[in-house]
Amino acid sequence: MELNPFIRDIPDFPKPGILFKDITPLLMNATAFQHSIDLLSIQFAGQKIDAIAAAEARGFLFAAPLALKLHKPLVPLRKPGKLPYRTYSLKYDLEYGQAELHMHVDGVELGQRVLLVDDVLATGGTMAAGGQLIEQAGGTVAGCAFLVELAFLNGRAKLPNYDVFSLLTY
Amino acid sequence: MELNPFIRDIPDFPKPGILFKDITPLLMNATAFQHSIDLLSIQFAGQKIDAIAAAEARGFLFAAPLALKLHKPLVPLRKPGKLPYRTYSLKYDLEYGQAELHMHVDGVELGQRVLLVDDVLATGGTMAAGGQLIEQAGGTVAGCAFLVELAFLNGRAKLPNYDVFSLLTY
Repeated sequence: MELNPFIRDIPDFPKPGILFKDITPLLMNATAFQHSIDLLSIQFAGQKIDAIAAAEARGFLFAAPLALKLHKPLVPLRKPGKLPYRTYSLKYDLEYGQAELHMHVDGVELGQRVLLVDDVLATGGTMAAGGQLIEQAGGTVAGCAFLVELAFLNGRAKLPNYDVFSLLTY
Repeated sequence: MELNPFIRDIPDFPKPGILFKDITPLLMNATAFQHSIDLLSIQFAGQKIDAIAAAEARGFLFAAPLALKLHKPLVPLRKPGKLPYRTYSLKYDLEYGQAELHMHVDGVELGQRVLLVDDVLATGGTMAAGGQLIEQAGGTVAGCAFLVELAFLNGRAKLPNYDVFSLLTY
């Protein structure tokens, strides 16, 4: 099954000149959505993975079904003020300004191998921050899994030490 | 299987005097997380449902697996500036100030029956806004499904015309 037909191009979003890859058509086709989860699970089924981590909000859409499919704990990575328990946190640079990502201190245990999941690999900043949070907790990044990779943004350069896998590359 | 042990009380979050119900222990136990999805799917399996809708971010965690389990389209409801295509939108009141929820105009079709899903029913404001968006698109709310209901906040009063179901009530 081809997943490409379920990714919609939206010109000039979020600003003029940017061609946005809209994943909502895939979410709205249960067969295609399930197929994307199946493909990601097959890719990582043979590897030692102790947990799945994902940043809000769209990362949750793929990480939750994948965590259930692989029967692994799901660790949410969230913006400041969202996680109620004690957290590790990390500030990181965006194109304009800074962002901050948090993870509960009991999200990842020492020595655990954690698979990071997101819908789209763009500049890689959020994913790199997620990897650092996992390492701060004593874990290891088992890999980074994406539905879509925007190769021209070279997000892999921010994830040089990780096994990066994507189902669709543009 | 009891789900209650996987909900953690966090005192004084997000502000003094509030006892927050933290769902992350449930997310971190794949058996409990899967069981919550199974119970929600059983509850609505016999009903005519054309799509599942959920507001970011935590709603996505339950709506995505449930949509796949019921094999239904998933319609994301998001904050302003997040959805790339044309949207219906609605401003609604929070305890302090206003919020705004968006849904793609092709998210729900005329006559469709849509199940709204979220992790926690608190004051019900976001869910009521979601219901109005679905109705704005010509759809009908088939029901509202929650993992947790905070009954003392009386969120059901904001959802008087909807079938409201929750797995855990506090």
